[in-house]
Amino acid sequence: MYIQKYAVTRRSVRRYKKEDIPLNDLMYILDVARYAPSGGNRQPWRFLLVSSPEKKKEIREICEEIERKFYNRAPREFVEWAASRNITWRKPHLTEAPVLILVFGRRGTPYWIESVWLMIGYLLLAAEEKGYATLTYTPSDTRWANSMFNVPEEYRLQTIIPIGKPDEAPSDPGRLPLKEIVFVEEWGNKLIQ
Amino acid sequence: MYIQKYAVTRRSVRRYKKEDIPLNDLMYILDVARYAPSGGNRQPWRFLLVSSPEKKKEIREICEEIERKFYNRAPREFVEWAASRNITWRKPHLTEAPVLILVFGRRGTPYWIESVWLMIGYLLLAAEEKGYATLTYTPSDTRWANSMFNVPEEYRLQTIIPIGKPDEAPSDPGRLPLKEIVFVEEWGNKLIQ
Repeated sequence: MYIQKYAVTRRSVRRYKKEDIPLNDLMYILDVARYAPSGGNRQPWRFLLVSSPEKKKEIREICEEIERKFYNRAPREFVEWAASRNITWRKPHLTEAPVLILVFGRRGTPYWIESVWLMIGYLLLAAEEKGYATLTYTPSDTRWANSMFNVPEEYRLQTIIPIGKPDEAPSDPGRLPLKEIVFVEEWGNKLIQ
Repeated sequence: MYIQKYAVTRRSVRRYKKEDIPLNDLMYILDVARYAPSGGNRQPWRFLLVSSPEKKKEIREICEEIERKFYNRAPREFVEWAASRNITWRKPHLTEAPVLILVFGRRGTPYWIESVWLMIGYLLLAAEEKGYATLTYTPSDTRWANSMFNVPEEYRLQTIIPIGKPDEAPSDPGRLPLKEIVFVEEWGNKLIQ
């Protein structure tokens, strides 16, 4: 059983080596992603691969500006949790990672947000299988991406996935045990006592 | 590379054999799912496993009533697509599958819908790896689940995943080729010409 191994070892990584990714590896990962099921099989996703240093710098500047504003009004609980994981308004992964995968969703197709994110689950596991670290980074405002890249109005940026070799080894953030999250026949009826 | 194989061979299955699922297999699949990343690591998901024939019958009756109403007002385009895939208001999988995994999301945590559906991507691949068929079935109304199972208001049913051995072999619904969905540096700039 392999998938468990990739699910368990994967970490959300925020520092990347600049080392390039062979195109074949990227294609493998996106090829896995495109097989995800979607509402009405509408496949409401498009991928924009950004590796140009100038474009990455521009994206980082815009996102850090958005993040500074966000952190100023974010709930204290969130800011404290973020600080404990070394997360701040600074987003070095947006320039360090060799490639940013901008994931766009097509509004209005059935269950489009749900479909796009299910597909992202496929994508992250395939990246881990190929030995690449990832992060799903979603700035609180995403409209800028439409004008920066001339993206049609019906598509919306859903997340930016930096991908590359990790330059940090984040600690295990922990997960709730199965007995806390799985109920049987009735809510609260734990499978494992 | 294994994940591609599971991604490519998986089909959304709507007819199931009644054959039971060993608990260990279910636990493997949910254990993979719980390792999915989530906004602020809040893990905003809970699983309710339903295998009682009475409860499954009750769920099916409610869902088919919702579906009959939905199909009466659904866009013709959807109804035609559905018919071409043998999908109607009838939901036999809700009583035929040995287990229904009701997936609930906790409203209000950061990116809770996105997180729940990313996790579902993990879950479907793990089920495929273990040789089980699945479907993500989301009725257009889900409030009934809170009263049927005494689920706290902050949790909302996100989908019902029937799981079991397939009793049909759906044809390949097809996917867009990579060259149609992957752009490089600029929207519309195809990687593969």
